[in-house]
Amino acid sequence: MTVKSMNDLFIHSLRDVYYAEKQMLRALPKMIKETKSDELKRAFETHLAETEGQVTRLEKIFDSCKAAIRGTKCEAIEGIIHEAQEMMDDVEDEEVLDAAILSSGQAVEHYEIARYGTLVAWADELGLKEASGLLKQTLEEEKKADRILTDIAKSRINPMARQPGLA
Amino acid sequence: MTVKSMNDLFIHSLRDVYYAEKQMLRALPKMIKETKSDELKRAFETHLAETEGQVTRLEKIFDSCKAAIRGTKCEAIEGIIHEAQEMMDDVEDEEVLDAAILSSGQAVEHYEIARYGTLVAWADELGLKEASGLLKQTLEEEKKADRILTDIAKSRINPMARQPGLA
Repeated sequence: MTVKSMNDLFIHSLRDVYYAEKQMLRALPKMIKETKSDELKRAFETHLAETEGQVTRLEKIFDSCKAAIRGTKCEAIEGIIHEAQEMMDDVEDEEVLDAAILSSGQAVEHYEIARYGTLVAWADELGLKEASGLLKQTLEEEKKADRILTDIAKSRINPMARQPGLA
Repeated sequence: MTVKSMNDLFIHSLRDVYYAEKQMLRALPKMIKETKSDELKRAFETHLAETEGQVTRLEKIFDSCKAAIRGTKCEAIEGIIHEAQEMMDDVEDEEVLDAAILSSGQAVEHYEIARYGTLVAWADELGLKEASGLLKQTLEEEKKADRILTDIAKSRINPMARQPGLA
Protein backbone atom coordinates (compact mmCIF):
# COMPACT_ATOMS: atom_id res chain seq x y z
CA MET A 1 0.00 0.00 0.00
CA THR A 2 1.45 3.37 -1.02
CA VAL A 3 0.91 5.88 1.77
CA LYS A 4 0.37 9.39 0.43
CA SER A 5 -1.44 11.10 3.29
CA MET A 6 -2.04 11.02 7.02
CA ASN A 7 -5.37 9.33 6.28
CA ASP A 8 -3.62 6.54 4.35
CA LEU A 9 -1.16 6.11 7.23
CA PHE A 10 -4.06 5.91 9.70
CA ILE A 11 -5.81 3.18 7.66
CA HIS A 12 -2.49 1.34 7.19
CA SER A 13 -1.93 1.27 10.96
CA LEU A 14 -5.54 0.28 11.64
CA ARG A 15 -4.97 -2.74 9.38
CA ASP A 16 -1.74 -3.59 11.21
CA VAL A 17 -3.48 -3.60 14.60
CA TYR A 18 -6.55 -5.38 13.19
CA TYR A 19 -4.28 -8.21 12.04
CA ALA A 20 -2.55 -8.19 15.44
CA GLU A 21 -5.85 -8.48 17.36
CA LYS A 22 -6.99 -11.33 15.10
CA GLN A 23 -3.72 -13.14 15.78
CA MET A 24 -4.25 -12.64 19.52
CA LEU A 25 -7.72 -14.22 19.25
CA ARG A 26 -5.85 -17.36 18.18
CA ALA A 27 -2.85 -17.04 20.51
CA LEU A 28 -4.63 -16.26 23.78
CA PRO A 29 -6.50 -19.59 24.05
CA LYS A 30 -3.14 -21.39 23.69
CA MET A 31 -1.62 -19.19 26.41
CA ILE A 32 -4.64 -19.84 28.66
CA LYS A 33 -4.25 -23.59 28.12
CA GLU A 34 -0.57 -23.51 29.13
CA THR A 35 -1.13 -21.29 32.19
CA LYS A 36 -1.25 -22.99 35.57
CA SER A 37 -2.27 -20.08 37.82
CA ASP A 38 -6.05 -19.63 38.03
CA GLU A 39 -5.63 -15.89 38.54
CA LEU A 40 -3.51 -15.51 35.39
CA LYS A 41 -5.89 -17.77 33.44
CA ARG A 42 -8.82 -15.52 34.44
CA ALA A 43 -6.91 -12.38 33.45
CA PHE A 44 -6.21 -13.83 29.99
CA GLU A 45 -9.82 -15.03 29.63
CA THR A 46 -11.11 -11.55 30.44
CA HIS A 47 -8.69 -10.10 27.93
CA LEU A 48 -9.75 -12.60 25.27
CA ALA A 49 -13.35 -11.37 25.63
CA GLU A 50 -12.11 -7.76 25.48
CA THR A 51 -10.10 -8.55 22.34
CA GLU A 52 -13.27 -9.72 20.59
CA GLY A 53 -14.85 -6.35 21.41
CA GLN A 54 -11.73 -4.55 20.19
CA VAL A 55 -11.95 -6.32 16.82
CA THR A 56 -15.59 -5.21 16.52
CA ARG A 57 -14.58 -1.62 17.36
CA LEU A 58 -11.90 -1.67 14.64
CA GLU A 59 -14.49 -2.91 12.13
CA LYS A 60 -16.76 0.01 13.09
CA ILE A 61 -13.86 2.41 12.50
CA PHE A 62 -13.13 0.93 9.05
CA ASP A 63 -16.82 1.41 8.23
CA SER A 64 -16.87 4.98 9.51
CA CYS A 65 -13.77 5.73 7.36
CA LYS A 66 -15.32 3.94 4.35
CA ALA A 67 -12.26 1.67 4.22
CA ALA A 68 -12.35 -2.06 3.49
CA ILE A 69 -12.19 -4.20 6.61
CA ARG A 70 -8.97 -6.13 6.32
CA GLY A 71 -5.69 -6.80 8.10
CA THR A 72 -2.14 -6.21 6.91
CA LYS A 73 0.45 -8.70 8.08
CA CYS A 74 1.95 -7.39 11.32
CA GLU A 75 5.40 -8.91 11.72
CA ALA A 76 5.86 -7.39 15.17
CA ILE A 77 2.96 -9.31 16.73
CA GLU A 78 4.00 -12.46 14.87
CA GLY A 79 7.48 -12.11 16.37
CA ILE A 80 6.10 -11.59 19.89
CA ILE A 81 3.73 -14.56 19.57
CA HIS A 82 6.43 -16.79 18.10
CA GLU A 83 8.78 -15.88 20.96
CA ALA A 84 6.00 -16.67 23.44
CA GLN A 85 5.50 -20.07 21.79
CA GLU A 86 9.23 -20.83 21.92
CA MET A 87 9.31 -19.81 25.58
CA MET A 88 6.39 -22.18 26.32
CA ASP A 89 8.37 -24.97 24.66
CA ASP A 90 11.66 -24.17 26.43
CA VAL A 91 10.51 -23.74 30.02
CA GLU A 92 10.31 -26.93 32.08
CA ASP A 93 9.15 -25.73 35.52
CA GLU A 94 5.41 -24.90 35.73
CA GLU A 95 5.73 -21.81 37.94
CA VAL A 96 8.57 -20.43 35.83
CA LEU A 97 6.40 -21.09 32.77
CA ASP A 98 3.64 -18.90 34.26
CA ALA A 99 6.16 -16.08 34.79
CA ALA A 100 7.30 -16.46 31.17
CA ILE A 101 3.73 -16.51 29.75
CA LEU A 102 2.81 -13.48 31.83
CA SER A 103 5.81 -11.56 30.49
CA SER A 104 4.81 -12.46 26.92
CA GLY A 105 1.33 -11.14 27.66
CA GLN A 106 2.84 -7.85 28.80
CA ALA A 107 4.96 -7.59 25.63
CA VAL A 108 1.74 -7.93 23.61
CA GLU A 109 -0.06 -5.32 25.73
CA HIS A 110 2.79 -2.84 25.33
CA TYR A 111 2.89 -3.33 21.58
CA GLU A 112 -0.82 -2.61 21.44
CA ILE A 113 -0.54 0.37 23.82
CA ALA A 114 2.07 1.89 21.48
CA ARG A 115 -0.07 1.33 18.37
CA TYR A 116 -3.39 2.48 19.88
CA GLY A 117 -1.68 5.51 21.48
CA THR A 118 -0.49 6.51 18.01
CA LEU A 119 -3.88 5.79 16.42
CA VAL A 120 -5.71 7.95 18.98
CA ALA A 121 -3.32 10.85 18.30
CA TRP A 122 -3.74 10.49 14.53
CA ALA A 123 -7.55 10.16 14.78
CA ASP A 124 -7.61 13.39 16.80
CA GLU A 125 -5.41 15.17 14.24
CA LEU A 126 -7.68 13.97 11.43
CA GLY A 127 -10.81 15.09 13.30
CA LEU A 128 -12.20 11.53 13.38
CA LYS A 129 -14.18 11.86 16.59
CA GLU A 130 -16.00 8.53 16.52
CA ALA A 131 -12.79 6.64 15.71
CA SER A 132 -10.90 8.49 18.42
CA GLY A 133 -13.53 7.64 21.03
CA LEU A 134 -13.53 3.95 20.11
CA LEU A 135 -9.71 3.76 20.01
CA LYS A 136 -9.47 5.44 23.41
CA GLN A 137 -11.75 2.79 24.91
CA THR A 138 -9.46 0.08 23.58
CA LEU A 139 -6.31 1.91 24.70
CA GLU A 140 -7.69 2.09 28.25
CA GLU A 141 -8.51 -1.64 28.18
CA GLU A 142 -4.96 -2.46 27.05
CA LYS A 143 -3.44 -0.30 29.79
CA LYS A 144 -5.72 -1.88 32.39
CA ALA A 145 -4.83 -5.39 31.17
CA ASP A 146 -1.13 -4.52 31.51
CA ARG A 147 -1.65 -3.19 35.06
CA ILE A 148 -3.53 -6.35 36.06
CA LEU A 149 -0.68 -8.50 34.73
CA THR A 150 1.85 -6.40 36.66
CA ASP A 151 -0.18 -6.86 39.86
CA ILE A 152 -0.43 -10.62 39.37
CA ALA A 153 3.31 -10.85 38.61
CA LYS A 154 4.31 -8.96 41.73
CA SER A 155 1.89 -10.57 44.14
CA ARG A 156 1.89 -14.18 43.01
CA ILE A 157 3.70 -15.41 39.95
CA ASN A 158 7.24 -14.14 40.43
CA PRO A 159 7.50 -15.09 44.13
CA MET A 160 6.16 -18.59 43.34
CA ALA A 161 8.46 -19.02 40.36
CA ARG A 162 11.44 -18.18 42.54
CA GLN A 163 10.37 -20.64 45.22
CA PRO A 164 8.30 -23.38 43.61
CA GLY A 165 5.84 -24.93 46.07
CA LEU A 166 5.11 -21.65 47.87
CA ALA A 167 1.37 -21.81 47.05
CA MET B 1 18.15 -23.00 25.80
CA THR B 2 16.20 -25.11 28.28
CA VAL B 3 14.82 -22.91 31.04
CA LYS B 4 14.68 -24.72 34.36
CA SER B 5 14.62 -21.88 36.87
CA MET B 6 13.80 -18.21 37.35
CA ASN B 7 17.50 -17.48 36.96
CA ASP B 8 17.59 -19.23 33.56
CA LEU B 9 14.52 -17.25 32.50
CA PHE B 10 16.18 -14.01 33.61
CA ILE B 11 19.33 -14.75 31.57
CA HIS B 12 17.22 -15.85 28.59
CA SER B 13 15.33 -12.53 28.65
CA LEU B 14 18.54 -10.54 29.13
CA ARG B 15 19.84 -12.16 25.94
CA ASP B 16 16.62 -11.30 24.11
CA VAL B 17 16.87 -7.63 25.04
CA TYR B 18 20.65 -7.57 24.42
CA TYR B 19 19.99 -8.76 20.86
CA ALA B 20 17.21 -6.16 20.54
CA GLU B 21 19.47 -3.29 21.64
CA LYS B 22 22.21 -4.40 19.25
CA GLN B 23 19.68 -4.42 16.41
CA MET B 24 18.58 -0.91 17.40
CA LEU B 25 22.19 0.29 17.21
CA ARG B 26 21.98 -0.63 13.51
CA ALA B 27 18.39 0.50 12.89
CA LEU B 28 18.46 3.93 14.57
CA PRO B 29 21.05 5.48 12.20
CA LYS B 30 18.83 4.47 9.24
CA MET B 31 15.80 6.02 10.95
CA ILE B 32 17.80 9.19 11.67
CA LYS B 33 18.85 9.39 8.02
CA GLU B 34 15.24 9.15 6.80
CA THR B 35 13.88 11.66 9.32
CA LYS B 36 13.27 15.20 8.07
CA SER B 37 12.38 16.97 11.34
CA ASP B 38 15.45 18.28 13.19
CA GLU B 39 13.72 17.81 16.54
CA LEU B 40 12.93 14.16 15.82
CA LYS B 41 16.44 13.58 14.45
CA ARG B 42 17.91 14.94 17.72
CA ALA B 43 15.61 12.75 19.82
CA PHE B 44 16.76 9.64 17.92
CA GLU B 45 20.43 10.71 18.13
CA THR B 46 20.13 11.14 21.89
CA HIS B 47 18.50 7.73 22.13
CA LEU B 48 21.21 6.15 19.97
CA ALA B 49 23.83 7.35 22.49
CA GLU B 50 21.66 6.04 25.36
CA THR B 51 21.31 2.69 23.59
CA GLU B 52 25.12 2.32 23.56
CA GLY B 53 25.12 2.86 27.32
CA GLN B 54 22.27 0.36 27.73
CA VAL B 55 24.30 -2.29 25.89
CA THR B 56 27.22 -1.67 28.25
CA ARG B 57 24.88 -1.98 31.25
CA LEU B 58 23.58 -5.32 29.98
CA GLU B 59 27.17 -6.56 29.57
CA LYS B 60 27.85 -5.58 33.20
CA ILE B 61 24.80 -7.55 34.28
CA PHE B 62 25.92 -10.65 32.35
CA ASP B 63 29.29 -10.34 34.10
CA SER B 64 27.71 -9.91 37.53
CA CYS B 65 25.58 -13.04 36.89
CA LYS B 66 28.63 -14.93 35.54
CA ALA B 67 26.73 -15.55 32.29
CA ALA B 68 28.26 -15.40 28.82
CA ILE B 69 27.64 -12.10 27.05
CA ARG B 70 25.55 -12.99 24.04
CA GLY B 71 22.24 -12.24 22.35
CA THR B 72 19.41 -14.59 21.46
CA LYS B 73 17.51 -13.81 18.30
CA CYS B 74 14.57 -11.57 19.22
CA GLU B 75 11.89 -11.97 16.59
CA ALA B 76 9.73 -9.27 18.09
CA ILE B 77 12.28 -6.50 17.53
CA GLU B 78 13.07 -7.86 14.09
CA GLY B 79 9.37 -7.65 13.24
CA ILE B 80 9.09 -4.09 14.54
CA ILE B 81 12.22 -2.99 12.64
CA HIS B 82 11.11 -4.71 9.46
CA GLU B 83 7.71 -3.01 9.67
CA ALA B 84 9.47 0.32 10.18
CA GLN B 85 11.59 -0.31 7.09
CA GLU B 86 8.52 -1.20 5.01
CA MET B 87 6.77 1.93 6.26
CA MET B 88 9.80 4.03 5.20
CA ASP B 89 9.57 2.46 1.74
CA ASP B 90 5.79 2.88 1.39
CA VAL B 91 5.32 6.49 2.53
CA GLU B 92 5.74 9.13 -0.16
CA ASP B 93 5.10 12.41 1.67
CA GLU B 94 8.01 13.63 3.86
CA GLU B 95 5.93 14.90 6.78
CA VAL B 96 3.79 11.76 6.80
CA LEU B 97 7.04 9.77 6.74
CA ASP B 98 8.19 11.54 9.92
CA ALA B 99 4.91 10.62 11.64
CA ALA B 100 5.39 7.01 10.54
CA ILE B 101 9.03 6.83 11.70
CA LEU B 102 8.10 8.40 15.03
CA SER B 103 5.38 5.80 15.56
CA SER B 104 7.87 3.01 14.79
CA GLY B 105 10.20 4.50 17.39
CA GLN B 106 7.41 4.39 19.96
CA ALA B 107 6.67 0.74 19.14
CA VAL B 108 10.34 -0.05 19.85
CA GLU B 109 10.28 1.93 23.12
CA HIS B 110 7.16 0.13 24.31
CA TYR B 111 8.63 -3.27 23.50
CA GLU B 112 11.69 -2.36 25.55
CA ILE B 113 9.61 -0.89 28.39
CA ALA B 114 7.74 -4.21 28.63
CA ARG B 115 10.94 -6.29 28.64
CA TYR B 116 12.89 -4.08 31.07
CA GLY B 117 9.85 -3.80 33.36
CA THR B 118 9.77 -7.59 33.54
CA LEU B 119 13.56 -7.85 34.02
CA VAL B 120 13.51 -5.35 36.91
CA ALA B 121 10.76 -7.36 38.64
CA TRP B 122 12.65 -10.63 38.14
CA ALA B 123 15.98 -9.13 39.28
CA ASP B 124 14.24 -7.94 42.46
CA GLU B 125 12.73 -11.38 43.06
CA LEU B 126 16.14 -12.99 42.56
CA GLY B 127 17.80 -10.51 44.92
CA LEU B 128 20.11 -9.23 42.16
CA LYS B 129 20.53 -5.70 43.49
CA GLU B 130 23.21 -4.47 41.09
CA ALA B 131 21.32 -5.84 38.08
CA SER B 132 18.05 -4.34 39.30
CA GLY B 133 19.65 -0.91 39.71
CA LEU B 134 21.17 -0.97 36.23
CA LEU B 135 17.95 -2.23 34.63
CA LYS B 136 15.92 0.48 36.38
CA GLN B 137 18.20 3.16 34.90
CA THR B 138 17.56 1.77 31.43
CA LEU B 139 13.82 1.41 32.05
CA GLU B 140 13.62 5.09 33.03
CA GLU B 141 15.56 6.08 29.88
CA GLU B 142 13.16 4.10 27.71
CA LYS B 143 10.11 5.67 29.37
CA LYS B 144 11.63 9.14 28.97
CA ALA B 145 12.44 8.47 25.30
CA ASP B 146 8.81 7.44 24.75
CA ARG B 147 7.49 10.59 26.49
CA ILE B 148 9.78 12.79 24.35
CA LEU B 149 8.48 11.11 21.18
CA THR B 150 4.88 11.65 22.34
CA ASP B 151 5.59 15.34 22.95
CA ILE B 152 7.21 15.78 19.53
CA ALA B 153 4.31 13.93 17.86
CA LYS B 154 1.66 16.09 19.49
CA SER B 155 3.38 19.44 19.12
CA ARG B 156 4.96 19.16 15.69
CA ILE B 157 4.90 16.02 13.61
CA ASN B 158 1.23 15.09 13.50
CA PRO B 159 -0.08 18.62 12.85
CA MET B 160 2.50 19.07 10.04
CA ALA B 161 1.75 15.70 8.53
CA ARG B 162 -1.95 16.56 8.38
CA GLN B 163 -1.25 19.90 6.72
CA PRO B 164 2.03 19.66 4.81
CA GLY B 165 3.74 23.04 4.49
CA LEU B 166 2.66 24.23 7.96
CA ALA B 167 6.30 24.67 9.11
